[in-house]
Amino acid sequence: MGSGRILVAQGGGPTAVINQSLVGVTLEARRFRDVTRVYGALHGVRGIVDEEFVDLTQETSHNLELVAGTPSSALGSTRDKPDEKYCAEIFNVLRAHEIEHFFYIGGNDSSDTVRIVSEQARAAGYPLRAIHIPKTIDNDLVGSDHTPGYPSAARFVAQAFAGANLDNAALPGVYVGVVMGRHAGFLTAASALGKKFPDDGPHLIYLPERVFDLERFLADVKATYERFGRCVIAVSEGIHDASGAPIATLLAKDVERDAHGNVQLSGTGALADLLCDAIKARLGIKRVRGDTFGYLQRSFIGCVSDVDQREAREVGEKAVQFALWGQADGSVAIRRTGFYSADYALLPLADVAGKTRTMEDEFIAASGTDVTDAFRLYLRPLLGAGMPDAFRLRPAPVAKILRR
Amino acid sequence: MGSGRILVAQGGGPTAVINQSLVGVTLEARRFRDVTRVYGALHGVRGIVDEEFVDLTQETSHNLELVAGTPSSALGSTRDKPDEKYCAEIFNVLRAHEIEHFFYIGGNDSSDTVRIVSEQARAAGYPLRAIHIPKTIDNDLVGSDHTPGYPSAARFVAQAFAGANLDNAALPGVYVGVVMGRHAGFLTAASALGKKFPDDGPHLIYLPERVFDLERFLADVKATYERFGRCVIAVSEGIHDASGAPIATLLAKDVERDAHGNVQLSGTGALADLLCDAIKARLGIKRVRGDTFGYLQRSFIGCVSDVDQREAREVGEKAVQFALWGQADGSVAIRRTGFYSADYALLPLADVAGKTRTMEDEFIAASGTDVTDAFRLYLRPLLGAGMPDAFRLRPAPVAKILRR
Repeated sequence: MGSGRILVAQGGGPTAVINQSLVGVTLEARRFRDVTRVYGALHGVRGIVDEEFVDLTQETSHNLELVAGTPSSALGSTRDKPDEKYCAEIFNVLRAHEIEHFFYIGGNDSSDTVRIVSEQARAAGYPLRAIHIPKTIDNDLVGSDHTPGYPSAARFVAQAFAGANLDNAALPGVYVGVVMGRHAGFLTAASALGKKFPDDGPHLIYLPERVFDLERFLADVKATYERFGRCVIAVSEGIHDASGAPIATLLAKDVERDAHGNVQLSGTGALADLLCDAIKARLGIKRVRGDTFGYLQRSFIGCVSDVDQREAREVGEKAVQFALWGQADGSVAIRRTGFYSADYALLPLADVAGKTRTMEDEFIAASGTDVTDAFRLYLRPLLGAGMPDAFRLRPAPVAKILRR
Repeated sequence: MGSGRILVAQGGGPTAVINQSLVGVTLEARRFRDVTRVYGALHGVRGIVDEEFVDLTQETSHNLELVAGTPSSALGSTRDKPDEKYCAEIFNVLRAHEIEHFFYIGGNDSSDTVRIVSEQARAAGYPLRAIHIPKTIDNDLVGSDHTPGYPSAARFVAQAFAGANLDNAALPGVYVGVVMGRHAGFLTAASALGKKFPDDGPHLIYLPERVFDLERFLADVKATYERFGRCVIAVSEGIHDASGAPIATLLAKDVERDAHGNVQLSGTGALADLLCDAIKARLGIKRVRGDTFGYLQRSFIGCVSDVDQREAREVGEKAVQFALWGQADGSVAIRRTGFYSADYALLPLADVAGKTRTMEDEFIAASGTDVTDAFRLYLRPLLGAGMPDAFRLRPAPVAKILRR
């Protein structure tokens, strides 16, 4: 090892446990005698090209542990998606600061950035070790059993629907909850884990893996409402029609796109309002309420899976070990090894970069509006310990006197 | 005591701890030798006139404890607001079932129902003891230090804003979070308890106790954004213009009203979207996101104040004691007796019924867009133990090389 300087950064949407990975990298790297400095770049790749670095070697291990337990990205994040030129700037800064180990915590766009920088370093003959550390609440990285951040967001969604179901049972009507997830329905599907009794909601789940048809949706809602006298619905923000056009944008006046060309889906209640309006107008149901979970689901403080915390820490630690003891760049992946246990592997960057995993067919019920037991078995251990539980009064009717 | 039959019901919007009060009534009543049956009415006053009763005397104390820890109304609720005729029907059913103790858990509308039924029983010479047990996330009952249900909802709002602030710091922009509360800003004001560092959000808080002016709002947002490079805003769903017209309805096509004549404010993202659109269009800020907390804030399972749980249980217990040992109908109120401790009193129904408390001036900063330390001191102990905390990395900048 040459300079002994390593750099870590965080990209993309924050999660409840992304700081665990940051602290995993930092504390593990500080254990290596050869590591002299651990730098953090502020606001992801943007902070690298701007040379906005902080020295994490100076931070106390005690405060690092507290930061690890704090949601969102302590270094700040960015939505920038570097192209070849941007990556060349990154590489120049890494070289100027004699950084020989680069860790980027992010989703599939971030893994693509790591891939490009890795290739540029190799082409230039510069001794860089570049590792992508996974995080995304969308759970859409290929090659991983699941991604850090997803279990905690899934726990929030499951708890939210457990509560919304109880609320809807007390004051019956139709409830629509819109959940994040552009292409992958994993987070929306987590709503099913909020269900306990057979008549509990969510009664209907709409995923981006299936084509959304408004007429079929209304027929589903009508049938459920007639059966249970109420209906709780989980909808992915990414639902789209047969042509692939997001339902959310079919009514939007100004479509906002980010640097990745993605249409802005969150941070607006338009989709929930559209669906609620359709239910009221077409089915004549009076009490129809829609919530868009928005940023609450990825940043709520105090709703976290202990399994997710542990694994997010470990992918950071393992990234340092793969970098300092290994001979290859790559992306850290979680492998499931028991019910429940996990281990970590390093995948070639090209196997992960820019690719999107969606929900496997075995996880989606034939109806297209529910999940399978295979999915419940997949997700339940990830939600962690201490999941709150809902209890009911048992039936004990009293005979009527006036109306018998 | 005559029949030994008591009836309990739950009305209005559910809270995280309303079942504590139900179970407080049930278990406390079962300790009285004279009580033969504890009935629960399904879906509030609606279940009374329909004679939809369950026998809570048959439920195990173990399951009652589990139900107590479950949010929302285990008996079901209603939005019905009984008039004199409706109350006469209630009274007829109570008499037919020889119920001589009636407990209604609800907000100020429910206390008015108890008041009317109480007066009708007295006029008819029927020996009814009627007690109103408080609950509302709005904290808008007069005569109480605070109401059961408010502390847990406030805790959710504080935690949500703590997380939203961290998210907004990682990916800077403007964030608008819309919080429940038609006339009283207590719940929106709770967002301030999510703030730790001086530059944390919420930077601006808009309450229904102050007139909302869009131009002043935009000027506030602009100034905050220029100062911090970002802006987190808490907005009450009940904000209104100088004429008292809710901002949310200024743009709504179809205004929905409930049985109490209240305009439907929740269950739609319209207000957040309106404000976000104005910020984007008028201030030219690109990243503007709005969330409407909606039903999550009152029904989320797993975010509850232990103080709230304890007090909600105790108002139920004390209601039974006031009824069986006392000589008057009334409404149970929480009195603050220390920092922090509480005791309970029975207020005359007419002092509470149909009245609305709003935030006292001493709780609102002179700017109109923040709370005072008096409010922080008021609310903090109610949030209970184990509030999650947010930590930051300390500054330790690294010297630039290329851009120095």
